[in-house]
Amino acid sequence: MVDQKATNIHWHEGDIGRPERASMLGHGGATLWFTGLSGSGKSTIAVALEGALHERGILCYRLDGDNIRFGINKNLGFSAEDRAENIRRVGEVSKLFVDSGVLVLSSFISPYRADREAVRQVHQESDMPFIEVFVDCSLEAAEERDPKGLYKKARAGEIKNFTGIDDPYEAPESPELHLRTDQQSLQEEVDAIIDLLVANNIISA
Amino acid sequence: MVDQKATNIHWHEGDIGRPERASMLGHGGATLWFTGLSGSGKSTIAVALEGALHERGILCYRLDGDNIRFGINKNLGFSAEDRAENIRRVGEVSKLFVDSGVLVLSSFISPYRADREAVRQVHQESDMPFIEVFVDCSLEAAEERDPKGLYKKARAGEIKNFTGIDDPYEAPESPELHLRTDQQSLQEEVDAIIDLLVANNIISA
Repeated sequence: MVDQKATNIHWHEGDIGRPERASMLGHGGATLWFTGLSGSGKSTIAVALEGALHERGILCYRLDGDNIRFGINKNLGFSAEDRAENIRRVGEVSKLFVDSGVLVLSSFISPYRADREAVRQVHQESDMPFIEVFVDCSLEAAEERDPKGLYKKARAGEIKNFTGIDDPYEAPESPELHLRTDQQSLQEEVDAIIDLLVANNIISA
Repeated sequence: MVDQKATNIHWHEGDIGRPERASMLGHGGATLWFTGLSGSGKSTIAVALEGALHERGILCYRLDGDNIRFGINKNLGFSAEDRAENIRRVGEVSKLFVDSGVLVLSSFISPYRADREAVRQVHQESDMPFIEVFVDCSLEAAEERDPKGLYKKARAGEIKNFTGIDDPYEAPESPELHLRTDQQSLQEEVDAIIDLLVANNIISA
């Protein structure tokens, strides 16, 4: 907290923008977009990364089903249109966070390539960093983990249109980072992301 | 920027939350909700406040029609339902920013009391500070200013359902702060908001 009390207001529209916020925070904002099957390890990586970045003094925030599906997207279901709108809104929210200076970690299965590309597009149009992280894991391994018991329900027909079972997962063709959670350790994955953030000048080494 | 390189990841789900982010930033997050007629001075105050807060090292971010109507709410028009959904989404986005630690300045005419109360509600349910600032100004003064020439168009019938002309503005009954922009100076308004933020322990004196 800075104690100085402003005695004059001399800022004008546009004076405080991304560069000023980045200068104050000591790092830039960016969207790290984690895509992959249910159970692939997206949230586990995002939580571990958040801890590692926080230790470095970097402001990050995780967006996931927990704070999105029950909030801004509570009026959306799982039809194709609603899935697309779900990802579109998350993409726009992510972009706002980048603009504010926050490093946002967005973890969503986001199975359709077109939806992810649209999010990339809105970021690029505004010169906002978008880093797609493919959290790759075989369906067998994800189903074996099944942390929420969802594959079991999908196999039993209790959940319809479940990604990997009766709905497709369209793997990224050229993600910025391709992790293989059935072959790498969590530490290796987090290190790989941090290295990429440094290489992209979003955080310093 | 902290140079320390994390060598171990020992954070677990829930370790990094609002308290940790507030501790890192040196201030808490909050939603300042500016409501009032078009031309009442909402944006002018938000811009000046943003500058004053930035000088104190406080991370803030402005949400307004510019970054909302063309982004997350680009699929909404001006029907009663769409206006309500517009404010609902902005409220949810504001809440996410508060959770991330940002002091968010949301400037929207938001003419309907029920819509604003719903935003207050979702904040209070999650123990997120919500501060309603009534940017009060007579219709005559706002119409005299008419910075965007919108009143002129509304009077000419070129814009329908314009707040204050042929659509109601429901003034807040008990806002946290009531500013009168046709009677106070900008400096007085900014000082009043900062005093309120200090009194609410969101920022330090």
